[in-house]
Amino acid sequence: MFITFEGIEGSGKSTAARILAEYMQERGMDLLLTKEPGGCPLGRGLRHTLLDARAHAVCSRAELFLFLADRAQHVAEVIRPALESGQCVLCDRYVDSTLAYQGYGRGLDTEFLRRLNETATGGLSPDLTLLLDVPVPCGIMRAGQRNKEAGTTVSEGRFDSESRAFHERVQKGYRVLAQEEPERFAVIDASQPVEDVSLQCLSAVEKILRLRGEDL
Amino acid sequence: MFITFEGIEGSGKSTAARILAEYMQERGMDLLLTKEPGGCPLGRGLRHTLLDARAHAVCSRAELFLFLADRAQHVAEVIRPALESGQCVLCDRYVDSTLAYQGYGRGLDTEFLRRLNETATGGLSPDLTLLLDVPVPCGIMRAGQRNKEAGTTVSEGRFDSESRAFHERVQKGYRVLAQEEPERFAVIDASQPVEDVSLQCLSAVEKILRLRGEDL
Repeated sequence: MFITFEGIEGSGKSTAARILAEYMQERGMDLLLTKEPGGCPLGRGLRHTLLDARAHAVCSRAELFLFLADRAQHVAEVIRPALESGQCVLCDRYVDSTLAYQGYGRGLDTEFLRRLNETATGGLSPDLTLLLDVPVPCGIMRAGQRNKEAGTTVSEGRFDSESRAFHERVQKGYRVLAQEEPERFAVIDASQPVEDVSLQCLSAVEKILRLRGEDL
Repeated sequence: MFITFEGIEGSGKSTAARILAEYMQERGMDLLLTKEPGGCPLGRGLRHTLLDARAHAVCSRAELFLFLADRAQHVAEVIRPALESGQCVLCDRYVDSTLAYQGYGRGLDTEFLRRLNETATGGLSPDLTLLLDVPVPCGIMRAGQRNKEAGTTVSEGRFDSESRAFHERVQKGYRVLAQEEPERFAVIDASQPVEDVSLQCLSAVEKILRLRGEDL
């Protein structure tokens, strides 16, 4: 089973993914928790380049292709081998991030981006996508807090410095994507306390497993 | 004016580009000599990643996207500003390398690759493309010699280690591209001595300039 986490900055994806991974491991599931960008050695090199936006002044087209390079290598080297060996894979960001950020956020054609995702992933689609939905001001505040606590001078996410209007477009984009594929997406109200968010993630996973006749 | 050099490994592109640049500069032309991959700081970082293929085992899809990221940044940061400031730009490899290597060489759909190039370049097409055409065994021998002289342990071009059949496909691809756009391409017999190759490059440039009513 291949589960992805999506949402704007500060929506709590990484925390929810970590807690869900712990729940599932406690129940004996063999799983791999990974993320994009930076889920493989090539990607970690690229992640540094991508996040260090100010130093490189990476243009938006180059940015798009770096994310796709990271994804292609991550799928080939990490995700597909793990799935083939029978592991469940939890991935923090995947194809929908490209559609939401570069498509809805930056205005690139989403049909073209779907084709790029298809090329990068070889057609590997998640079984379940957990969309952590928070109001944009809440996400921005949380992301700001996280950066402050980490004491990072370079923003952890290169999108953190984007305008509020950008994040609103990204969030709307995520909601459109979820409406288009209601069977793949579970939309979680991520303004709730983190424990409740994680429990809702868990019940979405259980629902999928029940539909497949499996059990956690 | 924007001039690109194309051809298989060992076809003598870099040497021809350097000599042509000297000719043109002696005649008072303001020009920039650049290359892909690695024509901008982002690209030089990526070039290292791309060429160090053995260390990273970069999959072919990730490779494609890294080349495109390099191109997008190179166009935005180097080529377009130079052209806009009135410089003539000579570039060692550009969009046709993607079509020849990833398309004809690796078998990816060339129409899709054209769209990717279009995205990476924002539609910036060369005014003249000099295709240095050599028999594949001659190119392989020259590339091998160059690597030996440079004492490189990691092959200078990550395609050097590909099979002869791969290079044959790439070369055939280049010839098809030249036939499709005879006005943009000048095909130069690059098995000749380097001075003759450079003089033929120069006369192709002069021809274009005459057509435009300009003079070197």
